[in-house]
Amino acid sequence: MFLIETKIIADEKPKLKNPVALVGLPGIGNIGRIAVGYLVHELKAKKFAELYSPYFFPFVMIHNDMIHTLRNEFYYWKSPKGRDLILLIGDCQTYDPKGHYEVSGKILDFLKGLGCKEIITIGGFSTGKVTEKPKVFAIATDPEMAKTLKKYEVETKVSGQIGTIVGASGLLVGMGRINGLKGFVLLGETSGFPIITDPTAAEAVLVVLQKVISIKVDLTKLEEKVKAMHDFIKKLEDIQSQAMEQMQKGGKKPEDLKYIG
Amino acid sequence: MFLIETKIIADEKPKLKNPVALVGLPGIGNIGRIAVGYLVHELKAKKFAELYSPYFFPFVMIHNDMIHTLRNEFYYWKSPKGRDLILLIGDCQTYDPKGHYEVSGKILDFLKGLGCKEIITIGGFSTGKVTEKPKVFAIATDPEMAKTLKKYEVETKVSGQIGTIVGASGLLVGMGRINGLKGFVLLGETSGFPIITDPTAAEAVLVVLQKVISIKVDLTKLEEKVKAMHDFIKKLEDIQSQAMEQMQKGGKKPEDLKYIG
Amino acid sequence: MFLIETKIIADEKPKLKNPVALVGLPGIGNIGRIAVGYLVHELKAKKFAELYSPYFFPFVMIHNDMIHTLRNEFYYWKSPKGRDLILLIGDCQTYDPKGHYEVSGKILDFLKGLGCKEIITIGGFSTGKVTEKPKVFAIATDPEMAKTLKKYEVETKVSGQIGTIVGASGLLVGMGRINGLKGFVLLGETSGFPIITDPTAAEAVLVVLQKVISIKVDLTKLEEKVKAMHDFIKKLEDIQSQAMEQMQKGGKKPEDLKYIG
Amino acid sequence: MFLIETKIIADEKPKLKNPVALVGLPGIGNIGRIAVGYLVHELKAKKFAELYSPYFFPFVMIHNDMIHTLRNEFYYWKSPKGRDLILLIGDCQTYDPKGHYEVSGKILDFLKGLGCKEIITIGGFSTGKVTEKPKVFAIATDPEMAKTLKKYEVETKVSGQIGTIVGASGLLVGMGRINGLKGFVLLGETSGFPIITDPTAAEAVLVVLQKVISIKVDLTKLEEKVKAMHDFIKKLEDIQSQAMEQMQKGGKKPEDLKYIG
Repeated sequence: MFLIETKIIADEKPKLKNPVALVGLPGIGNIGRIAVGYLVHELKAKKFAELYSPYFFPFVMIHNDMIHTLRNEFYYWKSPKGRDLILLIGDCQTYDPKGHYEVSGKILDFLKGLGCKEIITIGGFSTGKVTEKPKVFAIATDPEMAKTLKKYEVETKVSGQIGTIVGASGLLVGMGRINGLKGFVLLGETSGFPIITDPTAAEAVLVVLQKVISIKVDLTKLEEKVKAMHDFIKKLEDIQSQAMEQMQKGGKKPEDLKYIG
Repeated sequence: MFLIETKIIADEKPKLKNPVALVGLPGIGNIGRIAVGYLVHELKAKKFAELYSPYFFPFVMIHNDMIHTLRNEFYYWKSPKGRDLILLIGDCQTYDPKGHYEVSGKILDFLKGLGCKEIITIGGFSTGKVTEKPKVFAIATDPEMAKTLKKYEVETKVSGQIGTIVGASGLLVGMGRINGLKGFVLLGETSGFPIITDPTAAEAVLVVLQKVISIKVDLTKLEEKVKAMHDFIKKLEDIQSQAMEQMQKGGKKPEDLKYIG
Repeated sequence: MFLIETKIIADEKPKLKNPVALVGLPGIGNIGRIAVGYLVHELKAKKFAELYSPYFFPFVMIHNDMIHTLRNEFYYWKSPKGRDLILLIGDCQTYDPKGHYEVSGKILDFLKGLGCKEIITIGGFSTGKVTEKPKVFAIATDPEMAKTLKKYEVETKVSGQIGTIVGASGLLVGMGRINGLKGFVLLGETSGFPIITDPTAAEAVLVVLQKVISIKVDLTKLEEKVKAMHDFIKKLEDIQSQAMEQMQKGGKKPEDLKYIG
Repeated sequence: MFLIETKIIADEKPKLKNPVALVGLPGIGNIGRIAVGYLVHELKAKKFAELYSPYFFPFVMIHNDMIHTLRNEFYYWKSPKGRDLILLIGDCQTYDPKGHYEVSGKILDFLKGLGCKEIITIGGFSTGKVTEKPKVFAIATDPEMAKTLKKYEVETKVSGQIGTIVGASGLLVGMGRINGLKGFVLLGETSGFPIITDPTAAEAVLVVLQKVISIKVDLTKLEEKVKAMHDFIKKLEDIQSQAMEQMQKGGKKPEDLKYIG
């Protein structure tokens, strides 16, 4: 039956060499979304699958005068020499706690089916302070991986504090480990102020990421690309915010959610 | 098992010539509900299936002193010369975000099973202004369809803005495309003020719709029919509003929802 | 898997003569609960099945110093001459909109499996006024049944108003019809004031019900039995109210729900 | 499919002699969590299975600079002479009413698969008063078990009041009975003030528990161990509280849930 559950629709099943998955979904500062979106663009990665979920907001967007269903998108990039990449970006994450587990579970199953054994998710680490040289944190699921990460310019200590990573970035790595995928989260330090997109932190993450996966992309166009993404992402966030508010504050008919920009 | 999921119960499986589905469920100004309801009446379309959902409000209505379970209804109309029609109207949409996906998915599966490859959903476009000559917007899922729509007196540009269409009207077309159904949404311009039903916008949509599907109905009785529908729809909306409020504001026993008008 | 869905556990599958199901679950004035509970007691009906649901509140009660899981209970009574009875009473209804559909669906499936083709649910009709001689309303799903009901001292007209019946009482009859069970709802007129139990309305309903199903029970002990039921029902309602409030007002840890006496 | 439902992943299927399950999940005063956690430590019980649930909060924790998915953990201990033990502790309980039923159901199925026919859950009984010598209450599901419990220094009367036990502690015993597992709840009297952990009540429970299951552990290190657990539990509770508040107060983007300690 269609869309009782989260569903991934693939156009092809690419044969990939020991692929690493890079996940950049919307989140704090949209650091992951920008960083992986930029890689998709610069590497001219090929889209091969889409994920739809009944746990996404129940509306379609009108973008460029065309109807667009909320989705996440899978791309792949065949490396001329090193490991191939699977890149996951998207319009949104689910608004539903249980949905986070379902969406993450479906993604992990799909990645495993493509022979993927390693996953890197990218997010933001909100500090409440503006910084010019944002740090990058790398948090793994096992001590061995944590040791490997120390050779890059990242922080692997979170000052002994217990923190959390909410949503797909955290669950994909956390649940991945239980499913036989190794991985870690790369978090760009960001103020957490409502600036929507933080290209500086995204760049800091990309600098590290390139070394980790041994690729080299031109970062000079990043700021310009971010501007282009900014409006779409901002509008999308505003709409979801409003919808969330209406859904939770209650006392509204579902029809009140129906409007057009 | 009964009603763990949304279910469509059909009395017959009509053989239809390349049918187009027209969907008019309750929404802004109830434009779709009125327009398609009026077509059902004028064309003397035949009812052949009902949809029930655990994601509808958990109550029955007492209408004309008889118990009436909340439902959506499928009708068909065999065209003497052109394409046959499937018409979908109903008491309500779901109040639940996930329910929108499930209900839309079940409808799409059902339409595909009837050989339907095209879907037109009808809704309202709330502008906040009262207008005497409401515009009609037509938004498609692909550029080819968008081009075709330009030959009718509709707006296909939404001034570059990103907007959303919430609920079944949007999802049926958006998810339809992924399922191999082409389609578009027809939106009648309406103030969005709490007037419940907007027959003027419904008429504007019907004028366009007749051309699109090459039929001709007498629109002179529309206003009169709207009056008849108005009371039922208004009461239904009030009840759902109250139920929604109680369900979401909390602190109430489920029994508090039990009352009779 | 256990309790992913609502489950009915039966000790036996009684062979019943053309049985009628009588449903009295908690609701306005607890009229159904009292009326059917009293019949169970007076007829010495035999308990044969229990219903448990993940859509009931997630706690157990301590009653008479013993743990008691929230449940609904099925009883049967073999009539010496007429039709046999299936009687359904319970601690609670679900707090969840979707749960109402699931619980009702499971009950209907179970009743059909017992050869039951007719269902009478009993509830309250809140008027906001105290009355000494409460009326009894009978609302059917089809005109034929409505006509039959006119021969009893009941109101079959709800003054042309559209009202609703929330929860199992309504859905069992409304959905029952779609599943091939005929039925109607008997509603006792009650003030709707928070008096928890309304034995006067329950008695009025029992007077009618006895005629409808051709039985004769001694009603003189009703008031006394109601007193015995009252404390248990009241405490149960208070606890559910509080739990509902905490679950919906939010900002509380699930542990805050944990308390005793 | 992964994590559409609660899942228990076992490393081995231990052969156990007539095992008793002891359950200590977070709750009032964390009495169960402390008592059973202490037994796991003192008995050097062996971990053999983990439970993950889509009904847990949708985030991972960063603990000791490593990602840690929220989970419950099963341990076993082979007794040199008496009955073997299965010990269940965990980071959290679900925040979701339906989740409580699903998680409890999965645990019961798993325990039955291990030949377990008896379950003891440990929780707190909040009185609103500070006491130096906390009582221990033992509430069973059947009169026979209740009678057996009287030989220990426990209260089996809850002064005739009807109370509730919310969550897994109650449901595991209540639903267990329906599934063929006998059991009871041991509740340590505690103030219920937000002190997070109450080692005095935990000790009182452990004194009783040792007699019930005929084991002997050194309780002198309890207070010291509690200190070590305290910080982790407190931080976890604060985070869950905040997440709960955000999820329920609404009007927030899911991204707002994303932060790091």
